[in-house]
Amino acid sequence: MKTAAFLKGIKLGATSLKECLLTDLARVEELMQESLRSEIPFIEKLNDIVLEPRGKRLRPALLILAAGSPGSSPRATILASAVVEMIHTATLLHDDVVDGSLQRRGRPTLNAQGGDGSAILMGDYVYSRAITLLVEAELTQVLGLLATTVHRMSIGELLQLELHSRPVLDEAAYLRVIYEKTARLIEATCRSGAILGGRPQEEVEAGSDFGHKVGMAFQIVDDVLDYVSDPETLGKPVGSDLAEGKQTLPLLKTYAAASPATQTRLLELLSDVDGHREEIVGIVRDEGGVEAALAEARRYGEAARLALRQMPRGGIRSALDATVDFILERQF
Amino acid sequence: MKTAAFLKGIKLGATSLKECLLTDLARVEELMQESLRSEIPFIEKLNDIVLEPRGKRLRPALLILAAGSPGSSPRATILASAVVEMIHTATLLHDDVVDGSLQRRGRPTLNAQGGDGSAILMGDYVYSRAITLLVEAELTQVLGLLATTVHRMSIGELLQLELHSRPVLDEAAYLRVIYEKTARLIEATCRSGAILGGRPQEEVEAGSDFGHKVGMAFQIVDDVLDYVSDPETLGKPVGSDLAEGKQTLPLLKTYAAASPATQTRLLELLSDVDGHREEIVGIVRDEGGVEAALAEARRYGEAARLALRQMPRGGIRSALDATVDFILERQF
Repeated sequence: MKTAAFLKGIKLGATSLKECLLTDLARVEELMQESLRSEIPFIEKLNDIVLEPRGKRLRPALLILAAGSPGSSPRATILASAVVEMIHTATLLHDDVVDGSLQRRGRPTLNAQGGDGSAILMGDYVYSRAITLLVEAELTQVLGLLATTVHRMSIGELLQLELHSRPVLDEAAYLRVIYEKTARLIEATCRSGAILGGRPQEEVEAGSDFGHKVGMAFQIVDDVLDYVSDPETLGKPVGSDLAEGKQTLPLLKTYAAASPATQTRLLELLSDVDGHREEIVGIVRDEGGVEAALAEARRYGEAARLALRQMPRGGIRSALDATVDFILERQF
Repeated sequence: MKTAAFLKGIKLGATSLKECLLTDLARVEELMQESLRSEIPFIEKLNDIVLEPRGKRLRPALLILAAGSPGSSPRATILASAVVEMIHTATLLHDDVVDGSLQRRGRPTLNAQGGDGSAILMGDYVYSRAITLLVEAELTQVLGLLATTVHRMSIGELLQLELHSRPVLDEAAYLRVIYEKTARLIEATCRSGAILGGRPQEEVEAGSDFGHKVGMAFQIVDDVLDYVSDPETLGKPVGSDLAEGKQTLPLLKTYAAASPATQTRLLELLSDVDGHREEIVGIVRDEGGVEAALAEARRYGEAARLALRQMPRGGIRSALDATVDFILERQF
């Protein structure tokens, strides 16, 4: 599994941390499948599309690590890990409809396969099931945290939708959007893990801070990959964000540092993205927008590592540190 | 306000029950507005479209009545009433996208005005806020009930979506869909009211049963109005359900009782609804489908009245009884 490969060599006591994490992630997978299962064949068919192909399962991995006992996580930790992944899944289902995205992880999206209606309703189905899981398990504190997070994520998505409609090229607005729509859930994921693991308050705060920073780095790298990856590795066409009207950091950095002539040219091209996607991608690559955005991602990565210093040294801390490398270096 | 007009003449002690209910409904309205308010102008603009024009506020009215102290409801009752209306609102926002509905309550839907993306995300925004309201108020029992209800509603919507794709003309499937998508929330609404009002267990069960039956009657009448109302009163075109691929009770009753020749003709017309909507509506009206469906709605209404017998006589019970009349006789 892609998620845990970067943990190679890290030990937890006598055992490999990678093996410990994989054991718990398998339990998360099983719980997700079981919770979403339906006696209705139509829903089961949609479930198959939703649950395969698997994502990186980054959020469950982070939650399990932050809770501090991978390989022997109590049921509450496994359940919360399944819930954050289900929330993430529900968000993707709705986002793909909102953005009109037809490919993800190398396959047609649910909206492409089953229509917008199926994807909207399955998003509701998965999200509402996640909430009932938390209610049934009486994980009140985590429920409060995640419910608020989901609300803030919807605000982030609405902000992003508004930005589509005007060529603002505003880095502050971009950073706010990626915090709300992506980093907040990763922050809440790490916080939930630390809470459920019974970590002391300063570690809960450090975990949150780590999640926040790593979440920002994660989204920036995601946005960079849209400019530099190849479609096969990426699992979707290069320049998809541009096509969907999203102005991400590589473009914003390019614009901010460009000559007036290049700025004017960019504005022209952006007023008709459809015909000029390759040209815009070319300018961003040539003018150093990719490097500038990656430098920003690295700064968030360093801030995440700094947060880790509040945690005790050991296998868990090494694993979280290795996650930062994985996020900064990933190609997919 | 339309909601309370049918309560004319019913007293609660010395005061008019209508006035009592209106007092509480105004508090519900205020709490909804306040809870959804945002510092982001784009979201405020969408809020205006979502919150106006107001619906009938049937669910808050039922919850307040079932709780038993209209006019002096405690905050928990007001809050839960706002939450059920917000859940209902979120569901409508998503349904209108799924169904491609362009009009509701005499106005363009949010998806018609602001695009599908806005409507999907505002649905998520409103629903997630409703959940956080319950979490913040620590209304755990009601939260559990409503979270499960929302999950079941998504299943009902998915079932309905599946029925669209095949001409099944199956009354049992129809009844299951309207229970899941409509009656369950009204059942949970009445149950929540009775729980929050501290009613004895047999009244909680009676309230649930009442809500279930009244919810079925409500949806059947809704489906009948789509065949017989005029567009101005209805606030949307007649035959909208047919156009959206929904086979509702008037059609199902018509088909079940029709001669083989009429059945064949109906199947032909249903295979190309777009060009034959008026003709289908005409057959349903002529063949008694409307009366047969209304008779079914009346049976549910009587079952609802029967459930009320488990409650003490008095203003509240009279009001719930009057609600049944209102639901069976409404023209909008």
